[in-house]
Amino acid sequence: MAEGSKAVRFFPPEQFGVRTDLAVEAREAVGDVPGVEVQEEKRERFTVTRVEVKSPEGEQRLGKPRGRYVTIEAYGLRNRNRALEEEVGAVLAAELGRLLPSDGLAPLVAGLGNWDATPDALGPRVVDQLLVTRHLGHSAPPELRGRLRPVCAIAPGVLGTTGIETAELLAGVVARVRPSMVIAVDALAARSLNRLLTTIQVTDTGIHPGSGVAQGRPGISAQTLGVPVLAIGIPTVVHALTIVGEAIEALSEELSRAAGGEGLMRITPEAKQGLVDRVLGPQVGHLMVTPKEIDAYVGDLARMVAGALNRALQPGVEMEVIGRYVG
Amino acid sequence: MAEGSKAVRFFPPEQFGVRTDLAVEAREAVGDVPGVEVQEEKRERFTVTRVEVKSPEGEQRLGKPRGRYVTIEAYGLRNRNRALEEEVGAVLAAELGRLLPSDGLAPLVAGLGNWDATPDALGPRVVDQLLVTRHLGHSAPPELRGRLRPVCAIAPGVLGTTGIETAELLAGVVARVRPSMVIAVDALAARSLNRLLTTIQVTDTGIHPGSGVAQGRPGISAQTLGVPVLAIGIPTVVHALTIVGEAIEALSEELSRAAGGEGLMRITPEAKQGLVDRVLGPQVGHLMVTPKEIDAYVGDLARMVAGALNRALQPGVEMEVIGRYVG
Amino acid sequence: MAEGSKAVRFFPPEQFGVRTDLAVEAREAVGDVPGVEVQEEKRERFTVTRVEVKSPEGEQRLGKPRGRYVTIEAYGLRNRNRALEEEVGAVLAAELGRLLPSDGLAPLVAGLGNWDATPDALGPRVVDQLLVTRHLGHSAPPELRGRLRPVCAIAPGVLGTTGIETAELLAGVVARVRPSMVIAVDALAARSLNRLLTTIQVTDTGIHPGSGVAQGRPGISAQTLGVPVLAIGIPTVVHALTIVGEAIEALSEELSRAAGGEGLMRITPEAKQGLVDRVLGPQVGHLMVTPKEIDAYVGDLARMVAGALNRALQPGVEMEVIGRYVG
Amino acid sequence: MAEGSKAVRFFPPEQFGVRTDLAVEAREAVGDVPGVEVQEEKRERFTVTRVEVKSPEGEQRLGKPRGRYVTIEAYGLRNRNRALEEEVGAVLAAELGRLLPSDGLAPLVAGLGNWDATPDALGPRVVDQLLVTRHLGHSAPPELRGRLRPVCAIAPGVLGTTGIETAELLAGVVARVRPSMVIAVDALAARSLNRLLTTIQVTDTGIHPGSGVAQGRPGISAQTLGVPVLAIGIPTVVHALTIVGEAIEALSEELSRAAGGEGLMRITPEAKQGLVDRVLGPQVGHLMVTPKEIDAYVGDLARMVAGALNRALQPGVEMEVIGRYVG
Repeated sequence: MAEGSKAVRFFPPEQFGVRTDLAVEAREAVGDVPGVEVQEEKRERFTVTRVEVKSPEGEQRLGKPRGRYVTIEAYGLRNRNRALEEEVGAVLAAELGRLLPSDGLAPLVAGLGNWDATPDALGPRVVDQLLVTRHLGHSAPPELRGRLRPVCAIAPGVLGTTGIETAELLAGVVARVRPSMVIAVDALAARSLNRLLTTIQVTDTGIHPGSGVAQGRPGISAQTLGVPVLAIGIPTVVHALTIVGEAIEALSEELSRAAGGEGLMRITPEAKQGLVDRVLGPQVGHLMVTPKEIDAYVGDLARMVAGALNRALQPGVEMEVIGRYVG
Repeated sequence: MAEGSKAVRFFPPEQFGVRTDLAVEAREAVGDVPGVEVQEEKRERFTVTRVEVKSPEGEQRLGKPRGRYVTIEAYGLRNRNRALEEEVGAVLAAELGRLLPSDGLAPLVAGLGNWDATPDALGPRVVDQLLVTRHLGHSAPPELRGRLRPVCAIAPGVLGTTGIETAELLAGVVARVRPSMVIAVDALAARSLNRLLTTIQVTDTGIHPGSGVAQGRPGISAQTLGVPVLAIGIPTVVHALTIVGEAIEALSEELSRAAGGEGLMRITPEAKQGLVDRVLGPQVGHLMVTPKEIDAYVGDLARMVAGALNRALQPGVEMEVIGRYVG
Repeated sequence: MAEGSKAVRFFPPEQFGVRTDLAVEAREAVGDVPGVEVQEEKRERFTVTRVEVKSPEGEQRLGKPRGRYVTIEAYGLRNRNRALEEEVGAVLAAELGRLLPSDGLAPLVAGLGNWDATPDALGPRVVDQLLVTRHLGHSAPPELRGRLRPVCAIAPGVLGTTGIETAELLAGVVARVRPSMVIAVDALAARSLNRLLTTIQVTDTGIHPGSGVAQGRPGISAQTLGVPVLAIGIPTVVHALTIVGEAIEALSEELSRAAGGEGLMRITPEAKQGLVDRVLGPQVGHLMVTPKEIDAYVGDLARMVAGALNRALQPGVEMEVIGRYVG
Repeated sequence: MAEGSKAVRFFPPEQFGVRTDLAVEAREAVGDVPGVEVQEEKRERFTVTRVEVKSPEGEQRLGKPRGRYVTIEAYGLRNRNRALEEEVGAVLAAELGRLLPSDGLAPLVAGLGNWDATPDALGPRVVDQLLVTRHLGHSAPPELRGRLRPVCAIAPGVLGTTGIETAELLAGVVARVRPSMVIAVDALAARSLNRLLTTIQVTDTGIHPGSGVAQGRPGISAQTLGVPVLAIGIPTVVHALTIVGEAIEALSEELSRAAGGEGLMRITPEAKQGLVDRVLGPQVGHLMVTPKEIDAYVGDLARMVAGALNRALQPGVEMEVIGRYVG
């Protein structure tokens, strides 16, 4: 699970070692920047924002490598509405279609994350419902023969269960299997509760583990794998320390305002950290905030993402036909 | 999942509609009370506290019905230490042994909670590993015949998945099956992070859903079921609003102290509620704080509780023999 | 899992203690009988057969209590075709609609079987996807209020995991919850491999455990529960001894034919039993024949049956709306 | 799942395209062969047989590549006896110890098979309980530092879910990660019911997919991976066609005997195939025979194999300590 979203209001990111994985939020935080193009499409039940970082200045200001970032926000997903899920799935398929090459596509889909930890199981559960075809060759059902692109997939596990960096493991598989690209699906840790399970980001820049825990770990990108990498991410948890920090900031802001000016009573980072430590205490495992119904949410989202991938990767096959071959 | 533990420091429970399910915490909060006996046994790696509420005054002051409450605290359980798990399991078996009648025992074990929501699956997973014997009769293996107490078990589901109040469903089964008692196992929502997955409470007073969400719902007790009820509970989550509230209180306390006196700058309940709402926003499902590794923790604890129950319920059978018959 | 289908060709049922649970097969075996009405509807991809047993003579000849038996056969389901699944689901919903009362419907759906044994998990997995409404009352979403029938559900477990006869457990719940009827969903053991995962039987006579292992165990019917019982069953396994027996019969038949007459060389039941014992040897658990892909098949069928039940039980609610409330 | 065990009595292997994966059975079938050493150790509850194929003649006669084959047979495992499981686990650990190099061990454990198909999930479930250490380095707990061998692990999935040959995928990972060897764990398809879930084979020759379905697929061996391969296999299913074939042979043998001589009435392979086809009919998926309780059996065996591997791979660490770090 990579570090997730949301610009921090009170403190510069470098102080808390947090930055946002969502380009849409980074851009909100810094405003208009030369060499960063933004296109927003608002619909009744969702918004699509396409950010393209084109210049070195854009890269630096947003803290994001050059490339395209598409974000779909659909807050109604929190109501587990199947019709909306299908609508957003179709939008996701269309956006994936724009980012995928039309020729020579033979991708390896990598479902990142841990089967055994529900909020982290999004990637493996997507792979589980994917139409995998690379091995079919002449044995493909007649109705599919000649119309299928060769798709392969892997759920490589996580460092804690394999002892191998995911980037390293994928690099080995890519070197041998020689896919035309890698599509990585991962659960993210959001920084904002309202992004939880309602926002999907697709980017052609891959996955760049942030600072904090993941610092110094290799990314999953064209640079490390040698082929283009498209990454699909959805926030499924918020770190407990994020919301404790937010609570402290919220009160601190209120008090500042009451005292007559934003700048007067500013809590120091040290004081904030002390309070966070006091509230969270010595931790049991890695504390996170997640809905009690997370198993069901992750199941819904995995079905949605797998469906969108199947559609985008196999444009020559009808949905009805795909339905016959996947769980 | 019943409402859980920890006395609130700043506000009287009735204001926030929270009270603690852990008698040990209620007693800490109110201090010595006539008619409440407390016995504490500290060991190297765990503490056992036995509270007995004997008087109407004790009932009122602690907010707990008359009866016995045994709490085992073993903070090392957060390290997933198998040796400690076995040590605590043996202590739990011994405490259960003290609370169970020595004659005529024919219990129904009820694994409360929801299979499909990991932190709530403790009860069903305990039932899954229980030595169930009521149906064996003459078909019991020779080595067990005549030495087995008749144990039956059910994982009745939760209101949201059955449409039936658990108390109502159990009352129906009890009326028909006529067990000598019910032993209910349930995951709790703690109010304190350090109780998470490290504290076990056993009480002969049953389960009394607190205020808040569960208000007005029937308890699982001798009163509703017509037979004695022993309840075993372990906190597996903390509500997100609890820790946000704690963060606000912590800062508020610091500021009061800085301002020179506890009583000077007290945040009002309304202001606190406003801040909590602002931080948590419109919620996705029912937000809770839990370790990312919750699946593994619940698995460990279910094994520990099931093992302790098997030992306590079948004192005539060696562990090695029980191991042959349960998963 | 109740005993399943198919008339035995060589030996009278009483000799091997097997009979068929599928009325359609019993009727095939005995031919036309007064007081037994049969209506068959053949479609391109499935066949519906409606058998009604109306007379004592019919009961005796078919070995089936008076009542209605609807069988849907769709051999294409073995190809895991999602479009056919939806077609058959719609047919099942329509047949359920004919068998359900139009007024005062407030059913308890009982998902029989064992969560932990894949081929036996059909019932619990159906309950998992059911729209449960009995508890909603005034808290139902506005769009549903006043249009919902009160449905409740339970997955009671099996004798081996509860120590309680399922009939006994359900009788207790029914006496307390007072549903208007019980709808029991169960996996069956077929006697014919071609019925495996392709045949659905619905009957208003309940479940009557056959002879053999289940002999003497109470049925799940109006007689034992006090309310009408509709049973939905699908064969998910064939006992290993059934196919071994079939193999021996097949060779025996061939040899008889080769020897010039069916009647000349008949294998004796004792000889057959001896050969079956020799082939199967001392058994590891309870041997059954099932597809390696059984997890996926049971998942498909559970979704199909749950969908059909949701449609039939809530005719006032659109499918799209139901999709919002179930997994 | 590789093709499994047992020499065919009636027909030469090449006729039915079956051969045994168990060297102990191949050797039983052919008797004493020069260049094949056999050592058998019978104990009260299990037997260990060590076969070493040393000559080209041995290779040819047994149909097994040169190397060591250790088989542990413990028929009591079918009774799910935890004490026996521990006894056999200790024997397996000792046998693994003899086959592993004492220096420079840095293995990749590959859990072959499919998470989603219970009888095929043995490998992935072993990996799930393995002590993985390669990534710990300086962050290892003080009590373990300096005493751990670097173990990594992967559950690569199966061809049907990845689209990639397992041998190809592992070769890619090995080339990158550079383990000193691969230890592959896999579920086998037995040819004999009494081997089901009761026999463990360890061989230093890797996995060589047999004829039949797997024909022409690459093996998992030093030849394909470039490092030594140790394979651990346990039969978890028997193909349905195997037991149907056995039933036909059994009757055929009886009749031959009755007719006064083994050689007189021999069923032809064509006739046998015709009868098998008639009994099994057009198949639903890939039919196999397995105990209804297969989920529990596979769970037990995965725990046993993982425990034995942990012991054998980390001789410098006490079991009690390992227990703290694995599920």
